[in-house]
Amino acid sequence: MAVTSKRSATRCVEGSIPIVALAGGVGGAKLVQGLASVLPAQDLTVVVNTGDDEVFHGLYISPDLDTVMYSLAGLANRETGWGVAGDTFSALGMLKRYGAVGTWFNLGDKDLATHLERTRLLREGWTLSQATAHLCEKLGIQVSLVPMSDQPVRTVVETEEGVLPFQEYFVKHQCRPRVKRVRFEGAKTARISSSLEPAFRKAKALVMCPSNPIVSIGPILAVPNVRSRLDGFKGLRLAVSPIVAGQALRGPAAKMLQELGEEVSCVGVARRLREVCDIFVIDMLDSDRQQEIQALGLDMVVLDTVMNSDEDKARLARQILQVLRDRLA
Amino acid sequence: MAVTSKRSATRCVEGSIPIVALAGGVGGAKLVQGLASVLPAQDLTVVVNTGDDEVFHGLYISPDLDTVMYSLAGLANRETGWGVAGDTFSALGMLKRYGAVGTWFNLGDKDLATHLERTRLLREGWTLSQATAHLCEKLGIQVSLVPMSDQPVRTVVETEEGVLPFQEYFVKHQCRPRVKRVRFEGAKTARISSSLEPAFRKAKALVMCPSNPIVSIGPILAVPNVRSRLDGFKGLRLAVSPIVAGQALRGPAAKMLQELGEEVSCVGVARRLREVCDIFVIDMLDSDRQQEIQALGLDMVVLDTVMNSDEDKARLARQILQVLRDRLA
Repeated sequence: MAVTSKRSATRCVEGSIPIVALAGGVGGAKLVQGLASVLPAQDLTVVVNTGDDEVFHGLYISPDLDTVMYSLAGLANRETGWGVAGDTFSALGMLKRYGAVGTWFNLGDKDLATHLERTRLLREGWTLSQATAHLCEKLGIQVSLVPMSDQPVRTVVETEEGVLPFQEYFVKHQCRPRVKRVRFEGAKTARISSSLEPAFRKAKALVMCPSNPIVSIGPILAVPNVRSRLDGFKGLRLAVSPIVAGQALRGPAAKMLQELGEEVSCVGVARRLREVCDIFVIDMLDSDRQQEIQALGLDMVVLDTVMNSDEDKARLARQILQVLRDRLA
Repeated sequence: MAVTSKRSATRCVEGSIPIVALAGGVGGAKLVQGLASVLPAQDLTVVVNTGDDEVFHGLYISPDLDTVMYSLAGLANRETGWGVAGDTFSALGMLKRYGAVGTWFNLGDKDLATHLERTRLLREGWTLSQATAHLCEKLGIQVSLVPMSDQPVRTVVETEEGVLPFQEYFVKHQCRPRVKRVRFEGAKTARISSSLEPAFRKAKALVMCPSNPIVSIGPILAVPNVRSRLDGFKGLRLAVSPIVAGQALRGPAAKMLQELGEEVSCVGVARRLREVCDIFVIDMLDSDRQQEIQALGLDMVVLDTVMNSDEDKARLARQILQVLRDRLA
């Protein structure tokens, strides 16, 4: 079988599986970190949501790419979920003094360096994928971190208080306005990052990390050119529910699902993702929902999906690998 | 007399004189601070050297404008002579980690905010004069701070170790390479900032602050369009020697004068500036050089020009005002 011979050719570590993971913010970054700790670097490619990207102070800021990158580099601020641990905020204070626009978006000084260097590279004509690879390399990250697209896609939240770019909804308004609709500007014409093509060809499994299905996984799926890779994917497609016991472990996923009239549960998430996934992982706390998930035609797995420590992340990653191995066997 | 009536029309404070001051870095900033403390704000316009300006990390940095601005805002770091007092350096450390180009140029985090906001304004089409006025207003500076030109002028130092942009010579190589020639790229076609026109029309005196005559005052004089305002100036033109007892109080002025084959003394400076000045102020320590200065056709004044404290700065400014008043009477 062609896939197998290709796999052996990449010096596959015992029991490893080449994986493409889809991730958004904090929850996604946690599982990515777990996967990176149990897979050889060449077997993991992470596709990251860029719908949250925004320009502040003339700098190109990619919050989800940064969250995953800082996590993998061991730099992430675990308390806040964004930014660099132990960062200072001197520049932001001074920007406020200058009456600069957009100082409601928290930017630490070390974080600022990331945006400065990335913006400089983009202005010099690098793609976002190239700039990301460069920054990751400098931080010693060996796993491939790739934006879903090098073209701009912007998540826009239509709320009862008006149409808001994602960061305004998420940070400035702290997700308070009631959501009517979410759309992804630019998605229709965006193309998959060319760096992802070989990874999709090589991968035997696709893992949708426990990220917000609407605004983290949603924008990735909204790029037709990416979506077609998922639809036509030859390997296994596994998704982990970010909703546990009817609640989002972090962020506005539960609130958004509810306001959009969807069920706030792992079943609601499964309904959203059923077309692009084969195996759906729910938390032990949701084991009473097994039959509903299976009724959607999904292969259902119950695991302890809550990740509070690095050990939890590695454990969940190992368990997911085992699930995939069992089914690929 | 037209000039007198114009002066009274500007609600002149008792004993004040509308002044245009020319300044570069630290020494210049000190006298500017002194002048600002004894003159009503509307009577002081400061023309600042922009030959040192450079782009680092994609940001437009104007070291002399910043030094004067931070001094007037009470933010200047008195120990280093550049940057903001008590600043952090988190971003720079991270930029080094990214292997960014130009991290030899020290940039504090608060300082970075200045460059971010200025660069954003410039990209939006503001002139450097407009951006400077905006930043100054936000820092509560009432005196007019104006770049010598809104067009780029770049000081380039031809040394025995090659041709160096000013910041490379000054910061990266710490002024070590022997200077053969200094030139000001772009000066010939640069025009005076339009914000300066009314100030030059109103001014009754022009004060060249004790800044490096070669690389601080030099670039200002190199712009023909500025130079013609000085040549045709109807009021008094006074210069303060930055060389005291054969030494520069700060910076490479003495070393540069020597390497360019000029006399390293207040007399050497006077020779450089004689065509654009009427009154030349030397320090008490140089009182033995009085006759040589006068022999150049200059009106010579001896003052204590060393400024170690805010009191020194105000005292020297008051004494200079008195010199000007005496001659305008």
